[in-house]
Amino acid sequence: MKEKIVVGVDIGGTNTGFGFVDKKGKCIHYESIPTLAEQSAEHLFERLFDKINSLFNIYKNDYEIIGIGIGAPNANYHKGTIENPPNLKWGIVNVIKIVAKYFSVPCVITNDANAAAIGEMLFGTARGMKNFIVITLGTGLGSGIVVDGKIVYGNDGFAGELGHTIVDPNGRVCGCGNTGCLETYVSATGIKRTVFELIACKNSESKLRSISFDNLTSQIIANAAEHGDIIALEAFDYTAKILGMKLSDVVAVLSPESIVFAGGLANAGSLLLAPIKNYMEKYLPQMFKNKVHILNSSLPNGQSPILGAAALIWNEL
Amino acid sequence: MKEKIVVGVDIGGTNTGFGFVDKKGKCIHYESIPTLAEQSAEHLFERLFDKINSLFNIYKNDYEIIGIGIGAPNANYHKGTIENPPNLKWGIVNVIKIVAKYFSVPCVITNDANAAAIGEMLFGTARGMKNFIVITLGTGLGSGIVVDGKIVYGNDGFAGELGHTIVDPNGRVCGCGNTGCLETYVSATGIKRTVFELIACKNSESKLRSISFDNLTSQIIANAAEHGDIIALEAFDYTAKILGMKLSDVVAVLSPESIVFAGGLANAGSLLLAPIKNYMEKYLPQMFKNKVHILNSSLPNGQSPILGAAALIWNEL
Repeated sequence: MKEKIVVGVDIGGTNTGFGFVDKKGKCIHYESIPTLAEQSAEHLFERLFDKINSLFNIYKNDYEIIGIGIGAPNANYHKGTIENPPNLKWGIVNVIKIVAKYFSVPCVITNDANAAAIGEMLFGTARGMKNFIVITLGTGLGSGIVVDGKIVYGNDGFAGELGHTIVDPNGRVCGCGNTGCLETYVSATGIKRTVFELIACKNSESKLRSISFDNLTSQIIANAAEHGDIIALEAFDYTAKILGMKLSDVVAVLSPESIVFAGGLANAGSLLLAPIKNYMEKYLPQMFKNKVHILNSSLPNGQSPILGAAALIWNEL
Repeated sequence: MKEKIVVGVDIGGTNTGFGFVDKKGKCIHYESIPTLAEQSAEHLFERLFDKINSLFNIYKNDYEIIGIGIGAPNANYHKGTIENPPNLKWGIVNVIKIVAKYFSVPCVITNDANAAAIGEMLFGTARGMKNFIVITLGTGLGSGIVVDGKIVYGNDGFAGELGHTIVDPNGRVCGCGNTGCLETYVSATGIKRTVFELIACKNSESKLRSISFDNLTSQIIANAAEHGDIIALEAFDYTAKILGMKLSDVVAVLSPESIVFAGGLANAGSLLLAPIKNYMEKYLPQMFKNKVHILNSSLPNGQSPILGAAALIWNEL
């Protein structure tokens, strides 16, 4: 008898990862393709499922795909849709309908950060925790909120949009149509914008002055910071300060046990997580000080939303 | 046989209300005494229980007290304590222990705004709602958060401190020890501070110029606004703007169906609630616009936390 397997998918603003995940959360194959944000959702799903089908040929004698779990920005668990994701020009997409053209197995979709939160809760850093928040730092900033062991979906299925809380109503233009959203400051894109603002404002020497906005990445900024580049260091400090302050607000409202970081920018590790913790503690009301842990995902890079999205299917079956 | 009754208590920064509440949430007697914030907790409970005992003489032939439910600032449901309430100089108070000196019936304590949320959910505006937030606007700003039909207590029992999220880290000094907390701007005290800031800053004529800070009340400011006083109107607009922006953050994170207002300042009604709604909508991300209702408590003034605190006992029995 073939072993049952679920395809977990994580649609990001830059890359779309996927994996074949067993019931215990083991990912037997992981890979990613570029999302190509300027193209349609249909185009992405066609490329994605072609890739999955051709790869699955290696496994088809031993495994059987029994479901597809998808994490994506602005995904609605209740409706099976993705609606106006800020970093993709998709409008409203009925994902369940598209997937049905390729696979005749159940498909479940949820917000990418909710998927990451489920992954961390079942298989990662948040195992055994009942009240925690997962922050995904990639092209944007996602958040998955767990209260009493359950994802908070809210009244309409769209809860968890910490990335679109407001830092400065007269601030940076956001892909969501508003100005001053948290993710325009705190994300891989946000820290690039901060570097450019600092270069414009300061006279400090910096290797980053020789790089265009299009060529700059958060990894380049992290490398520069590790070599003592003043602009890069200041950009990380500013990023940490803004997120630390927002997290102090979230802690005052929800009083979680931990905040778990996942996603590309979170790999900056001590450059980012230690100062985030310091700033958060500074702004926290007395009653919450020294209680909340700031933790890094313990799952392989990029896998928490894939494992979580797959777990949605395992839970439903 | 005597009818069973629960004493519901709501400890506020200025007044402490109480009522004798039956199982259906009917309050057969309601009264309040001054809290006298500068005195000890023991002193308040002595005055309160003396008053309750003497009043209960009228009812003792027909009713039997079977429990005490208390709503109070910084109250911890799990521990039975009140811990460093910002507007009272109490430190840490073991409420269950004090109550046991006066009554040999079960006592339960929770945050005053959580109590109000339970009252609204069982008997008031939020009947039938699963995801909503209650904001109490009195001496301070309290919030009770309901997700999936249950109060959010968080990891340590202290969740729901929206009043201590930060508006401006360099802003007004708060009773909690931090600076710039929301309740230093949005509360009966906060709007007084705003009036004084506006009087200092502007040259507009205003009746409020003749009133000292100690003599000014939010009711006087509301009356002045209703008569077109420019300073008073501007103070309400500023209060609504700050709260509207904070609520847009909360909606993005929790996506509630409604936000229900209770407490003294909430009586300012159209002066406050309509502009709060307008500002909140302005700052909300597109996906949340025109979805969240801003509602007033439908319970008699001051009774939602009393009914909710009493309901805690009815639920436990």
